[in-house]
Amino acid sequence: MRYLITFSYDGTNYSGYQRQLNHKTIQGEIENALNKISGGEYIKLCSSGRTDKGVHAINQKAHFDLNKKITLYKLRSAINRYIDNDIYVKDIKIVPNDFHARYMVRRKIYTYKINTSDYNPLERYYIYQYNKPLNIKKIKQQVKYLIGTHDFSSFANKEEKKESYIRTIYKIKVNYKSNILSITFIGNGFLKYQVRNMVGALIDVSNSKKGIKTILEAKDRSLFGKIAPSEGLYLEDVKY
Amino acid sequence: MRYLITFSYDGTNYSGYQRQLNHKTIQGEIENALNKISGGEYIKLCSSGRTDKGVHAINQKAHFDLNKKITLYKLRSAINRYIDNDIYVKDIKIVPNDFHARYMVRRKIYTYKINTSDYNPLERYYIYQYNKPLNIKKIKQQVKYLIGTHDFSSFANKEEKKESYIRTIYKIKVNYKSNILSITFIGNGFLKYQVRNMVGALIDVSNSKKGIKTILEAKDRSLFGKIAPSEGLYLEDVKY
Repeated sequence: MRYLITFSYDGTNYSGYQRQLNHKTIQGEIENALNKISGGEYIKLCSSGRTDKGVHAINQKAHFDLNKKITLYKLRSAINRYIDNDIYVKDIKIVPNDFHARYMVRRKIYTYKINTSDYNPLERYYIYQYNKPLNIKKIKQQVKYLIGTHDFSSFANKEEKKESYIRTIYKIKVNYKSNILSITFIGNGFLKYQVRNMVGALIDVSNSKKGIKTILEAKDRSLFGKIAPSEGLYLEDVKY
Repeated sequence: MRYLITFSYDGTNYSGYQRQLNHKTIQGEIENALNKISGGEYIKLCSSGRTDKGVHAINQKAHFDLNKKITLYKLRSAINRYIDNDIYVKDIKIVPNDFHARYMVRRKIYTYKINTSDYNPLERYYIYQYNKPLNIKKIKQQVKYLIGTHDFSSFANKEEKKESYIRTIYKIKVNYKSNILSITFIGNGFLKYQVRNMVGALIDVSNSKKGIKTILEAKDRSLFGKIAPSEGLYLEDVKY
C-alpha cells in the first residue's frame, strides 16, 4: 500500500531534509518512525524534494510503501508519536501504487520572510532579520523578470551540476505588512538554493542600480551578493 | 546614573527570570553583560518582576545603576552584543535616581495564547496547544468575574506566602481569530502563577458546569484543574 503524507517541520535543529549518517535529518527522523511501525523493515520515504538545513515546511509531501493492516488514523498517530515534536504529520492518505511524490509535482510554493523592523528574539529562527533599508517598490517591480520559463543558472548552486537549469515560475506575490516582507514563489520546481538566491538578488537589486533582468540573462551567479539565509524560507505547499 | 531598559526575550531556554547559581536566567545573562561593560563591578538588574521558566516577554522593563561615560546608543549596543540572541534590548533611557522598575509599576499587561487548531511544530514553544473543544463564548462571558479588585488566593501559588493576595484587574480582552485564542490581562500586578492559573481555570470552566465566580470566592486553588503551561504566556508591557 502506498501512502502520501503531508507534514510540517521546524528545520532549525535538522541538517536538512535528506538522510545522512550521524546527522539528524527530517527524512531520517520519519524513516526511523516508519521502521518502528513496520517492525524493523526499512521503509524509504520519498519526498517532493529536499529542503536545506534550517529551512521550514508548512506542507511538505512524501510517499512511502507499507504492508501492514492499520487504519490511516492509527498510522498517522503512530508516526507522530515516534517523531520529535518539531515535525508533525498533518494528513495521510492512500494513493495509487504508481503515484510518485517527486516526479508528479505540478507546483511548488515557497515563501520567504524578511523582518525590516526591530529584531525580535522570539522569531530569530523563523524570519530573516534585515537591518538596512529595503526598496520595497523596486522589489515589487523587479520580481516580474523572474516570472516565466527561464534558465535560472544565475540563481543555482554552483557546485551542483544539473542537466537543465530551466524552470518555470508561474507567479510571485510580494506582500509588505507590519514591517514584514513576504515573497511567495509559485513554480513547477526550483533548483537547489534558487529561492534563497532569488531573494538575495532581490535584496541586492533593491539597494543598488542593478536589475534582475541583467542578472538572469547573464547566467552568472557572481552578479549579486549574498544568498538569503535559510531561516526565512518556508516550503508552503506542493501540488500534484 | 540610573538607566531603564525595555527588552524582549524568548524564555524557552531559560530557568526563568531570576538569577540562580548554575542556571541560565534572564537576569543572570543581562547582569553578566553589564559586568563586562562596567569592567568587573557587579551591577544589579532590577526588573518590573520575575517571569517563570519558559515564559516570554515582549516589553519587560528593568533599571540598573552604572557610573560610566557612555552614550545610550553605545550602552544598548554593548549589552546586545554581550547577551545571547534570545534576549534583545529594544530601548534604553536615563531615569531619575529615585525611579524604581518594580515599586513604581502602575500596570502590567500579560497575554496568553492558545492554539485550538492543528498542532504547529513551528510554534511549539510559543503557544499552548489545546486539542479539546473550548467554549469560547463561555470564556468571554466568564472573564468578567475576574475584573476588579479581588483576593486572588484561588489563583496563587500555594507554596508562596504573600502578605496580601489582593490585586486589581482593570481589563481582560478575549480575542479569537484564525483558531488562536488570545486572552490579555491588564492589572496593577499579578501573583506568581496567577495569570496561568486564571487561564487554567477559564479552560476548566469552559468545559464544565463550573463558574469563575465560585472559584474566585472560595479562595481555594483545588477547585479547578491544571495550570496553563508557560509557553503560551507573554509579558506584553509594563507601564509606569
